[in-house]
Amino acid sequence: MSDDRPIGVFDSGVGGLTVARAIWELLPNESVTYVGDGAHFPYGPRPVEEIRRFAMGIAEHLVARGVKLLVVACNSIEVSAIGDIAAAADVPVVGVIAPGVRAALRATRSGVVGVIGTEATIRTGSYQRAVGSGATLVAAACPLFVEHVERGDTTSAALRAAAARYLAPLDREGVDTVIMGCTHYPLLSGLLQLELGPDVVLVSSADETAKDVYAELVRADALRDAPDAPVHTFATTGDPEAFRRLAEQVLGLEVGDVDRAVIAEDAA
Amino acid sequence: MSDDRPIGVFDSGVGGLTVARAIWELLPNESVTYVGDGAHFPYGPRPVEEIRRFAMGIAEHLVARGVKLLVVACNSIEVSAIGDIAAAADVPVVGVIAPGVRAALRATRSGVVGVIGTEATIRTGSYQRAVGSGATLVAAACPLFVEHVERGDTTSAALRAAAARYLAPLDREGVDTVIMGCTHYPLLSGLLQLELGPDVVLVSSADETAKDVYAELVRADALRDAPDAPVHTFATTGDPEAFRRLAEQVLGLEVGDVDRAVIAEDAA
Repeated sequence: MSDDRPIGVFDSGVGGLTVARAIWELLPNESVTYVGDGAHFPYGPRPVEEIRRFAMGIAEHLVARGVKLLVVACNSIEVSAIGDIAAAADVPVVGVIAPGVRAALRATRSGVVGVIGTEATIRTGSYQRAVGSGATLVAAACPLFVEHVERGDTTSAALRAAAARYLAPLDREGVDTVIMGCTHYPLLSGLLQLELGPDVVLVSSADETAKDVYAELVRADALRDAPDAPVHTFATTGDPEAFRRLAEQVLGLEVGDVDRAVIAEDAA
Repeated sequence: MSDDRPIGVFDSGVGGLTVARAIWELLPNESVTYVGDGAHFPYGPRPVEEIRRFAMGIAEHLVARGVKLLVVACNSIEVSAIGDIAAAADVPVVGVIAPGVRAALRATRSGVVGVIGTEATIRTGSYQRAVGSGATLVAAACPLFVEHVERGDTTSAALRAAAARYLAPLDREGVDTVIMGCTHYPLLSGLLQLELGPDVVLVSSADETAKDVYAELVRADALRDAPDAPVHTFATTGDPEAFRRLAEQVLGLEVGDVDRAVIAEDAA
Protein backbone atom coordinates (compact mmCIF):
# COMPACT_ATOMS: atom_id res chain seq x y z
CA MET A 1 0.00 0.00 0.00
CA SER A 2 1.37 3.36 -1.05
CA ASP A 3 0.57 6.33 1.18
CA ASP A 4 0.61 9.15 -1.34
CA ARG A 5 -0.15 11.98 1.09
CA PRO A 6 2.61 14.59 1.30
CA ILE A 7 4.84 15.30 4.28
CA GLY A 8 4.10 18.77 5.67
CA VAL A 9 7.15 20.88 6.54
CA PHE A 10 6.99 24.37 7.99
CA ASP A 11 9.24 27.14 9.21
CA SER A 12 9.24 30.88 9.65
CA GLY A 13 11.14 31.31 6.38
CA VAL A 14 13.36 29.37 4.00
CA GLY A 15 15.63 27.85 6.68
CA GLY A 16 13.40 24.80 7.00
CA LEU A 17 14.23 23.99 3.39
CA THR A 18 17.49 22.50 4.74
CA VAL A 19 15.26 19.97 6.53
CA ALA A 20 13.04 19.47 3.47
CA ARG A 21 16.10 18.84 1.36
CA ALA A 22 17.51 16.37 3.85
CA ILE A 23 14.16 14.54 3.69
CA TRP A 24 14.25 14.44 -0.14
CA GLU A 25 17.73 12.98 0.00
CA LEU A 26 16.69 10.09 2.21
CA LEU A 27 13.20 9.68 0.75
CA PRO A 28 13.32 10.79 -2.89
CA ASN A 29 9.91 9.28 -3.57
CA GLU A 30 8.04 11.37 -0.97
CA SER A 31 6.08 14.53 -1.77
CA VAL A 32 6.60 17.54 0.47
CA THR A 33 4.23 20.44 1.10
CA TYR A 34 6.25 23.33 2.50
CA VAL A 35 4.96 26.50 4.13
CA GLY A 36 7.14 29.39 5.29
CA ASP A 37 5.73 32.20 7.39
CA GLY A 38 7.45 34.92 5.42
CA ALA A 39 4.95 37.55 6.60
CA HIS A 40 6.25 37.15 10.14
CA PHE A 41 9.90 36.23 9.53
CA PRO A 42 12.14 36.21 11.54
CA TYR A 43 10.66 34.43 14.55
CA GLY A 44 13.92 34.53 16.54
CA PRO A 45 13.36 37.87 18.31
CA ARG A 46 9.55 37.43 18.79
CA PRO A 47 7.73 36.60 22.05
CA VAL A 48 6.93 32.91 22.48
CA GLU A 49 3.16 33.56 22.65
CA GLU A 50 3.18 35.25 19.27
CA ILE A 51 5.26 32.51 17.65
CA ARG A 52 2.83 29.93 19.06
CA ARG A 53 -0.15 31.72 17.49
CA PHE A 54 1.45 31.94 14.05
CA ALA A 55 2.70 28.34 14.15
CA MET A 56 -0.66 26.86 15.19
CA GLY A 57 -2.29 28.55 12.21
CA ILE A 58 0.19 27.04 9.79
CA ALA A 59 0.03 23.58 11.37
CA GLU A 60 -3.77 23.57 11.05
CA HIS A 61 -3.47 24.75 7.45
CA LEU A 62 -1.16 21.83 6.62
CA VAL A 63 -3.28 19.23 8.44
CA ALA A 64 -6.33 20.51 6.54
CA ARG A 65 -4.40 19.89 3.32
CA GLY A 66 -4.06 16.22 4.20
CA VAL A 67 -0.41 15.77 5.13
CA LYS A 68 0.55 12.41 6.65
CA LEU A 69 3.24 13.80 8.95
CA LEU A 70 4.09 17.28 10.22
CA VAL A 71 7.70 18.39 10.46
CA VAL A 72 8.32 21.43 12.62
CA ALA A 73 11.46 22.53 10.77
CA CYS A 74 12.26 25.47 13.03
CA ASN A 75 13.72 25.50 16.49
CA SER A 76 11.93 28.72 17.44
CA ILE A 77 8.54 27.16 16.61
CA GLU A 78 9.37 23.94 18.39
CA VAL A 79 10.40 25.60 21.65
CA SER A 80 7.27 27.76 21.55
CA ALA A 81 4.53 25.42 20.40
CA ILE A 82 5.40 21.78 19.76
CA GLY A 83 3.16 20.51 22.56
CA ASP A 84 0.13 22.45 21.32
CA ILE A 85 0.80 21.44 17.73
CA ALA A 86 1.04 17.75 18.62
CA ALA A 87 -2.14 17.98 20.70
CA ALA A 88 -4.09 19.62 17.86
CA ALA A 89 -2.80 17.51 14.96
CA ASP A 90 -4.14 14.04 14.18
CA VAL A 91 -0.91 13.03 12.44
CA PRO A 92 2.56 12.35 13.88
CA VAL A 93 4.65 15.46 14.56
CA VAL A 94 8.44 15.41 14.24
CA GLY A 95 10.53 18.29 15.59
CA VAL A 96 14.18 19.20 15.26
CA ILE A 97 15.26 19.34 18.90
CA ALA A 98 14.92 15.72 20.05
CA PRO A 99 16.79 14.27 17.03
CA GLY A 100 19.63 16.77 17.45
CA VAL A 101 19.91 16.21 21.19
CA ARG A 102 19.89 12.44 20.75
CA ALA A 103 22.71 12.64 18.21
CA ALA A 104 24.73 14.94 20.47
CA LEU A 105 24.33 12.70 23.51
CA ARG A 106 25.59 9.71 21.57
CA ALA A 107 28.56 11.66 20.17
CA THR A 108 29.87 13.41 23.27
CA ARG A 109 32.82 11.86 25.07
CA SER A 110 33.44 14.63 27.61
CA GLY A 111 29.77 15.03 28.51
CA VAL A 112 29.94 18.77 27.77
CA VAL A 113 27.67 19.66 24.85
CA GLY A 114 27.13 23.06 23.24
CA VAL A 115 24.06 24.38 21.46
CA ILE A 116 23.85 27.48 19.28
CA GLY A 117 20.60 29.04 18.09
CA THR A 118 18.50 32.16 17.74
CA GLU A 119 17.68 34.26 20.79
CA ALA A 120 14.16 32.76 21.04
CA THR A 121 15.50 29.22 20.94
CA ILE A 122 18.21 29.76 23.53
CA ARG A 123 16.12 31.92 25.86
CA THR A 124 13.36 29.31 26.34
CA GLY A 125 15.79 26.76 27.80
CA SER A 126 14.22 23.97 25.73
CA TYR A 127 17.54 22.42 24.84
CA GLN A 128 18.45 22.43 28.52
CA ARG A 129 15.26 20.49 29.28
CA ALA A 130 15.78 18.08 26.37
CA VAL A 131 19.35 17.31 27.42
CA GLY A 132 18.30 16.93 31.05
CA SER A 133 20.93 15.21 33.12
CA GLY A 134 22.43 13.51 30.05
CA ALA A 135 25.19 16.08 29.69
CA THR A 136 26.32 19.54 30.77
CA LEU A 137 24.90 22.01 28.25
CA VAL A 138 26.50 25.30 27.22
CA ALA A 139 24.12 27.48 25.18
CA ALA A 140 24.98 30.48 23.02
CA ALA A 141 22.64 32.73 21.03
CA CYS A 142 24.01 33.75 17.62
CA PRO A 143 21.60 36.50 16.53
CA LEU A 144 23.49 37.66 13.42
CA PHE A 145 23.99 34.27 11.77
CA VAL A 146 20.63 33.99 9.96
CA GLU A 147 21.03 37.42 8.43
CA HIS A 148 24.48 36.59 7.03
CA VAL A 149 23.32 33.24 5.63
CA GLU A 150 20.33 34.86 3.93
CA ARG A 151 22.70 37.33 2.26
CA GLY A 152 24.64 34.35 0.90
CA ASP A 153 27.58 35.20 3.17
CA THR A 154 29.34 32.29 4.86
CA THR A 155 32.92 33.60 4.78
CA SER A 156 33.15 37.37 5.44
CA ALA A 157 35.45 38.87 8.05
CA ALA A 158 32.42 40.37 9.86
CA LEU A 159 30.75 36.97 10.08
CA ARG A 160 33.93 35.27 11.25
CA ALA A 161 34.40 37.91 13.95
CA ALA A 162 30.80 37.37 15.11
CA ALA A 163 31.35 33.61 15.16
CA ALA A 164 34.53 33.92 17.22
CA ARG A 165 32.64 36.08 19.75
CA TYR A 166 29.56 33.81 19.93
CA LEU A 167 31.57 30.60 20.21
CA ALA A 168 34.09 31.73 22.82
CA PRO A 169 31.98 30.50 25.79
CA LEU A 170 31.63 27.04 24.22
CA ASP A 171 35.37 26.82 23.79
CA ARG A 172 35.99 28.04 27.34
CA GLU A 173 33.67 25.39 28.80
CA GLY A 174 35.33 22.58 26.86
CA VAL A 175 32.43 21.35 24.72
CA ASP A 176 33.33 18.44 22.43
CA THR A 177 30.00 18.35 20.55
CA VAL A 178 27.91 21.27 19.29
CA ILE A 179 24.28 21.12 18.14
CA MET A 180 23.44 23.53 15.33
CA GLY A 181 20.08 24.51 16.81
CA CYS A 182 18.79 26.54 13.88
CA THR A 183 17.95 25.25 10.43
CA HIS A 184 20.10 27.92 8.77
CA TYR A 185 23.27 26.90 10.57
CA PRO A 186 24.23 23.77 8.59
CA LEU A 187 25.13 26.26 5.84
CA LEU A 188 27.74 27.64 8.27
CA SER A 189 29.27 24.31 9.20
CA GLY A 190 32.53 25.06 7.32
CA LEU A 191 32.98 28.21 9.37
CA LEU A 192 31.82 26.58 12.60
CA GLN A 193 34.15 23.61 12.28
CA LEU A 194 37.07 25.93 11.55
CA GLU A 195 36.30 28.15 14.56
CA LEU A 196 35.55 25.29 16.96
CA GLY A 197 38.54 23.23 15.86
CA PRO A 198 38.84 19.73 14.42
CA ASP A 199 38.07 17.89 17.68
CA VAL A 200 34.49 19.10 17.99
CA VAL A 201 31.62 17.06 16.54
CA LEU A 202 29.02 19.25 14.82
CA VAL A 203 25.46 17.90 14.86
CA SER A 204 23.03 18.96 12.12
CA SER A 205 19.46 18.94 13.40
CA ALA A 206 18.28 18.97 9.78
CA ASP A 207 20.02 15.68 8.93
CA GLU A 208 19.00 14.03 12.19
CA THR A 209 15.38 15.12 11.74
CA ALA A 210 15.28 13.63 8.23
CA LYS A 211 16.44 10.30 9.67
CA ASP A 212 13.62 10.45 12.22
CA VAL A 213 11.11 11.11 9.44
CA TYR A 214 12.46 8.06 7.59
CA ALA A 215 12.12 5.87 10.70
CA GLU A 216 8.63 7.20 11.48
CA LEU A 217 7.29 6.49 7.98
CA VAL A 218 8.80 2.98 7.98
CA ARG A 219 7.37 2.32 11.43
CA ALA A 220 3.91 3.57 10.45
CA ASP A 221 4.09 1.71 7.10
CA ALA A 222 3.29 5.04 5.45
CA LEU A 223 5.88 5.26 2.69
CA ARG A 224 4.88 6.48 -0.74
CA ASP A 225 5.50 3.71 -3.24
CA ALA A 226 4.14 5.05 -6.51
CA PRO A 227 5.83 4.94 -9.90
CA ASP A 228 5.08 8.57 -10.76
CA ALA A 229 7.33 11.41 -9.57
CA PRO A 230 6.56 13.03 -6.22
CA VAL A 231 5.01 16.51 -6.21
CA HIS A 232 6.51 19.24 -4.04
CA THR A 233 4.62 22.44 -3.35
CA PHE A 234 5.92 25.60 -1.73
CA ALA A 235 3.98 28.43 -0.19
CA THR A 236 4.73 31.45 1.95
CA THR A 237 2.56 33.86 3.86
CA GLY A 238 4.88 36.60 2.62
CA ASP A 239 6.19 37.52 -0.81
CA PRO A 240 6.35 34.41 -3.06
CA GLU A 241 8.98 35.99 -5.31
CA ALA A 242 11.24 36.78 -2.34
CA PHE A 243 10.83 33.19 -1.11
CA ARG A 244 11.70 31.78 -4.52
CA ARG A 245 14.76 34.01 -4.83
CA LEU A 246 16.03 33.20 -1.32
CA ALA A 247 15.54 29.46 -1.82
CA GLU A 248 17.62 29.68 -4.96
CA GLN A 249 20.31 32.05 -3.64
CA VAL A 250 20.74 30.53 -0.21
CA LEU A 251 20.16 26.87 -0.95
CA GLY A 252 20.57 26.61 -4.71
CA LEU A 253 17.08 25.10 -4.77
CA GLU A 254 14.83 25.59 -7.78
CA VAL A 255 11.41 25.60 -6.13
CA GLY A 256 9.40 26.62 -9.20
CA ASP A 257 6.11 28.40 -8.55
CA VAL A 258 5.59 29.56 -4.98
CA ASP A 259 2.03 30.03 -3.72
CA ARG A 260 0.80 32.68 -1.35
CA ALA A 261 -0.51 30.85 1.74
CA VAL A 262 -3.49 32.47 3.43
CA ILE A 263 -3.59 31.29 7.01
CA ALA A 264 -6.97 31.33 8.77
CA GLU A 265 -5.73 33.52 11.58
CA ASP A 266 -4.54 36.19 9.17
CA ALA A 267 -8.05 36.48 7.84
CA ALA A 268 -9.59 36.56 11.31
CA MET B 1 41.67 39.74 -3.54
CA SER B 2 39.09 37.44 -5.05
CA ASP B 3 40.29 34.11 -6.44
CA ASP B 4 37.72 33.47 -9.14
CA ARG B 5 39.11 30.15 -10.34
CA PRO B 6 36.67 27.25 -9.92
CA ILE B 7 37.01 24.31 -7.58
CA GLY B 8 37.46 21.08 -9.56
CA VAL B 9 35.43 18.10 -8.36
CA PHE B 10 35.51 14.66 -9.95
CA ASP B 11 34.06 11.23 -9.54
CA SER B 12 33.28 8.15 -11.60
CA GLY B 13 29.65 9.25 -11.91
CA VAL B 14 27.07 11.47 -10.22
CA GLY B 15 27.86 10.35 -6.64
CA GLY B 16 30.44 13.08 -6.20
CA LEU B 17 27.63 15.60 -6.65
CA THR B 18 26.82 14.96 -2.98
CA VAL B 19 30.27 16.43 -2.25
CA ALA B 20 29.79 19.29 -4.74
CA ARG B 21 26.48 20.12 -3.15
CA ALA B 22 27.96 20.09 0.33
CA ILE B 23 30.62 22.54 -0.95
CA TRP B 24 27.95 24.86 -2.42
CA GLU B 25 26.14 24.86 0.90
CA LEU B 26 29.19 26.00 2.82
CA LEU B 27 30.63 28.20 0.06
CA PRO B 28 27.72 29.49 -2.02
CA ASN B 29 29.97 32.02 -3.77
CA GLU B 30 32.39 29.45 -5.20
CA SER B 31 32.25 28.12 -8.77
CA VAL B 32 32.56 24.38 -9.27
CA THR B 33 33.75 22.52 -12.37
CA TYR B 34 32.54 18.94 -12.12
CA VAL B 35 33.59 15.96 -14.23
CA GLY B 36 32.10 12.49 -13.96
CA ASP B 37 33.68 9.53 -15.74
CA GLY B 38 30.39 8.15 -16.99
CA ALA B 39 32.11 6.22 -19.79
CA HIS B 40 33.79 4.02 -17.16
CA PHE B 41 31.20 4.02 -14.38
CA PRO B 42 31.11 2.19 -11.99
CA TYR B 43 34.68 2.17 -10.69
CA GLY B 44 33.85 -0.04 -7.70
CA PRO B 45 34.46 -3.43 -9.33
CA ARG B 46 37.46 -2.31 -11.50
CA PRO B 47 41.16 -3.08 -10.89
CA VAL B 48 43.07 -0.33 -9.07
CA GLU B 49 45.49 0.18 -11.97
CA GLU B 50 42.65 0.90 -14.36
CA ILE B 51 40.95 3.34 -11.98
CA ARG B 52 44.28 5.14 -11.53
CA ARG B 53 44.69 5.58 -15.28
CA PHE B 54 41.18 7.00 -15.76
CA ALA B 55 41.45 9.28 -12.72
CA MET B 56 44.83 10.74 -13.70
CA GLY B 57 43.39 11.71 -17.07
CA ILE B 58 40.49 13.58 -15.48
CA ALA B 59 42.69 15.27 -12.86
CA GLU B 60 45.00 16.57 -15.61
CA HIS B 61 41.99 17.75 -17.61
CA LEU B 62 40.73 19.75 -14.61
CA VAL B 63 44.14 21.23 -13.77
CA ALA B 64 44.50 22.28 -17.41
CA ARG B 65 41.18 24.10 -17.07
CA GLY B 66 42.62 26.24 -14.26
CA VAL B 67 40.95 24.96 -11.10
CA LYS B 68 42.34 26.30 -7.82
CA LEU B 69 41.72 23.11 -5.84
CA LEU B 70 41.03 19.49 -6.79
CA VAL B 71 38.47 17.48 -4.86
CA VAL B 72 38.66 13.73 -5.37
CA ALA B 73 34.98 13.09 -4.63
CA CYS B 74 35.15 9.33 -4.90
CA ASN B 75 36.55 6.81 -2.47
CA SER B 76 37.47 4.36 -5.22
CA ILE B 77 39.60 7.01 -6.96
CA GLU B 78 41.20 8.12 -3.74
CA VAL B 79 42.28 4.64 -2.67
CA SER B 80 43.67 3.99 -6.14
CA ALA B 81 45.37 7.22 -7.12
CA ILE B 82 45.42 10.08 -4.62
CA GLY B 83 49.19 10.02 -4.24
CA ASP B 84 49.80 10.17 -7.98
CA ILE B 85 47.18 12.87 -8.42
CA ALA B 86 48.69 15.05 -5.68
CA ALA B 87 52.18 14.55 -7.13
CA ALA B 88 51.06 15.56 -10.62
CA ALA B 89 48.79 18.51 -9.68
CA ASP B 90 50.17 21.96 -8.89
CA VAL B 91 47.10 22.82 -6.78
CA PRO B 92 45.99 21.46 -3.39
CA VAL B 93 44.17 18.12 -3.53
CA VAL B 94 41.43 17.24 -1.02
CA GLY B 95 40.14 13.69 -0.74
CA VAL B 96 37.21 12.14 1.08
CA ILE B 97 38.96 9.56 3.27
CA ALA B 98 41.02 11.69 5.66
CA PRO B 99 38.11 14.03 6.54
CA GLY B 100 35.78 11.09 7.20
CA VAL B 101 38.35 9.20 9.28
CA ARG B 102 39.15 12.29 11.33
CA ALA B 103 35.45 12.84 12.09
CA ALA B 104 35.01 9.17 13.05
CA LEU B 105 38.01 9.17 15.37
CA ARG B 106 36.70 12.20 17.21
CA ALA B 107 33.19 10.71 17.51
CA THR B 108 33.95 7.17 18.66
CA ARG B 109 33.69 6.40 22.34
CA SER B 110 34.21 2.63 22.17
CA GLY B 111 37.16 2.85 19.79
CA VAL B 112 35.47 0.45 17.38
CA VAL B 113 34.69 2.18 14.08
CA GLY B 114 32.96 0.74 11.02
CA VAL B 115 33.40 1.70 7.39
CA ILE B 116 31.15 0.74 4.48
CA GLY B 117 32.04 1.21 0.83
CA THR B 118 32.30 -0.30 -2.61
CA GLU B 119 34.32 -3.46 -3.17
CA ALA B 120 37.27 -1.46 -4.59
CA THR B 121 37.35 0.86 -1.60
CA ILE B 122 37.17 -1.88 1.02
CA ARG B 123 39.53 -4.26 -0.76
CA THR B 124 42.46 -1.80 -0.89
CA GLY B 125 42.57 -1.45 2.88
CA SER B 126 43.01 2.32 2.62
CA TYR B 127 40.63 3.07 5.46
CA GLN B 128 42.57 0.59 7.59
CA ARG B 129 45.77 2.52 6.87
CA ALA B 130 44.11 5.90 7.47
CA VAL B 131 42.68 4.81 10.81
CA GLY B 132 45.98 3.22 11.81
CA SER B 133 46.16 2.54 15.53
CA GLY B 134 43.54 5.22 16.29
CA ALA B 135 40.71 2.69 16.52
CA THR B 136 39.70 -0.86 15.68
CA LEU B 137 38.21 -0.80 12.19
CA VAL B 138 35.48 -3.13 10.90
CA ALA B 139 35.02 -2.86 7.13
CA ALA B 140 32.09 -4.07 5.03
CA ALA B 141 31.63 -3.89 1.26
CA CYS B 142 28.09 -3.03 0.17
CA PRO B 143 28.14 -3.76 -3.58
CA LEU B 144 24.40 -3.31 -4.25
CA PHE B 145 23.92 0.08 -2.57
CA VAL B 146 25.00 2.33 -5.47
CA GLU B 147 22.68 0.54 -7.87
CA HIS B 148 19.66 1.01 -5.59
CA VAL B 149 20.44 4.68 -4.98
CA GLU B 150 20.78 5.34 -8.70
CA ARG B 151 17.34 3.82 -9.23
CA GLY B 152 15.99 6.31 -6.68
CA ASP B 153 15.35 3.47 -4.23
CA THR B 154 16.18 4.13 -0.58
CA THR B 155 13.36 2.16 1.07
CA SER B 156 12.56 -1.12 -0.74
CA ALA B 157 12.40 -4.47 1.03
CA ALA B 158 15.21 -5.79 -1.20
CA LEU B 159 17.47 -2.90 -0.23
CA ARG B 160 16.67 -3.25 3.44
CA ALA B 161 17.44 -6.97 3.31
CA ALA B 162 20.78 -6.21 1.65
CA ALA B 163 21.55 -3.58 4.29
CA ALA B 164 20.77 -5.96 7.14
CA ARG B 165 23.12 -8.52 5.59
CA TYR B 166 25.95 -6.04 4.92
CA LEU B 167 25.75 -4.39 8.33
CA ALA B 168 25.52 -7.53 10.47
CA PRO B 169 29.33 -7.77 10.97
CA LEU B 170 29.49 -4.13 12.16
CA ASP B 171 26.77 -4.79 14.68
CA ARG B 172 28.44 -8.00 15.84
CA GLU B 173 31.76 -6.21 16.44
CA GLY B 174 30.13 -3.43 18.45
CA VAL B 175 30.94 -0.39 16.29
CA ASP B 176 29.62 2.90 17.69
CA THR B 177 30.58 5.05 14.68
CA VAL B 178 30.25 4.23 10.97
CA ILE B 179 31.92 6.07 8.09
CA MET B 180 29.84 6.17 4.91
CA GLY B 181 32.82 5.52 2.64
CA CYS B 182 31.08 6.11 -0.69
CA THR B 183 29.64 9.39 -1.92
CA HIS B 184 26.30 7.75 -2.73
CA TYR B 185 25.72 6.54 0.81
CA PRO B 186 24.62 9.77 2.51
CA LEU B 187 21.40 9.28 0.52
CA LEU B 188 20.93 6.04 2.48
CA SER B 189 21.51 7.54 5.92
CA GLY B 190 17.84 7.16 6.95
CA LEU B 191 18.03 3.45 6.22
CA LEU B 192 21.50 3.07 7.74
CA GLN B 193 20.59 4.83 10.98
CA LEU B 194 17.48 2.68 11.29
CA GLU B 195 19.41 -0.55 10.69
CA LEU B 196 22.38 0.38 12.88
CA GLY B 197 20.23 1.71 15.71
CA PRO B 198 20.06 5.11 17.40
CA ASP B 199 23.34 4.77 19.31
CA VAL B 200 25.59 4.71 16.26
CA VAL B 201 27.10 7.93 14.90
CA LEU B 202 27.02 8.07 11.08
CA VAL B 203 29.80 10.08 9.46
CA SER B 204 29.22 11.62 6.02
CA SER B 205 32.50 11.91 4.11
CA ALA B 206 30.77 14.40 1.78
CA ASP B 207 29.98 16.86 4.58
CA GLU B 208 33.39 16.46 6.20
CA THR B 209 35.17 16.95 2.88
CA ALA B 210 33.26 20.18 2.24
CA LYS B 211 34.44 21.50 5.62
CA ASP B 212 38.02 20.68 4.65
CA VAL B 213 37.59 22.56 1.38
CA TYR B 214 36.30 25.56 3.35
CA ALA B 215 39.29 25.44 5.70
CA GLU B 216 41.76 24.99 2.84
CA LEU B 217 40.45 28.01 0.90
CA VAL B 218 40.46 30.19 4.01
CA ARG B 219 43.99 29.05 4.87
CA ALA B 220 45.24 29.69 1.33
CA ASP B 221 43.35 33.02 1.17
CA ALA B 222 41.80 31.74 -2.05
CA LEU B 223 38.10 32.48 -1.54
CA ARG B 224 36.07 33.89 -4.38
CA ASP B 225 34.73 37.28 -3.34
CA ALA B 226 33.01 38.62 -6.45
CA PRO B 227 29.57 40.23 -6.61
CA ASP B 228 28.41 38.22 -9.64
CA ALA B 229 26.94 34.74 -9.31
CA PRO B 230 29.30 31.76 -9.40
CA VAL B 231 29.33 29.59 -12.53
CA HIS B 232 29.04 25.83 -12.23
CA THR B 233 29.84 23.55 -15.13
CA PHE B 234 29.19 19.85 -15.45
CA ALA B 235 30.71 17.37 -17.83
CA THR B 236 30.82 13.63 -18.23
CA THR B 237 32.88 11.29 -20.36
CA GLY B 238 29.69 9.32 -20.92
CA ASP B 239 26.18 10.27 -21.99
CA PRO B 240 25.42 13.90 -20.97
CA GLU B 241 21.67 13.30 -21.01
CA ALA B 242 21.99 10.28 -18.71
CA PHE B 243 24.14 12.35 -16.35
CA ARG B 244 21.62 15.20 -16.31
CA ARG B 245 18.72 12.82 -15.67
CA LEU B 246 20.51 10.97 -12.86
CA ALA B 247 21.58 14.21 -11.17
CA GLU B 248 17.98 15.30 -11.17
CA GLN B 249 16.41 11.97 -10.19
CA VAL B 250 18.92 10.93 -7.56
CA LEU B 251 19.85 14.29 -6.08
CA GLY B 252 17.08 16.60 -7.21
CA LEU B 253 19.79 18.78 -8.75
CA GLU B 254 19.07 20.86 -11.84
CA VAL B 255 22.47 20.87 -13.50
CA GLY B 256 21.42 22.52 -16.77
CA ASP B 257 23.55 21.74 -19.83
CA VAL B 258 26.02 18.91 -19.39
CA ASP B 259 29.12 18.83 -21.60
CA ARG B 260 30.81 15.79 -23.04
CA ALA B 261 34.33 15.71 -21.57
CA VAL B 262 36.99 14.34 -23.87
CA ILE B 263 39.88 13.12 -21.76
CA ALA B 264 43.33 13.01 -23.35
CA GLU B 265 43.83 9.36 -22.63
CA ASP B 266 40.60 8.40 -24.35
CA ALA B 267 41.95 9.97 -27.52
CA ALA B 268 45.30 8.20 -27.20
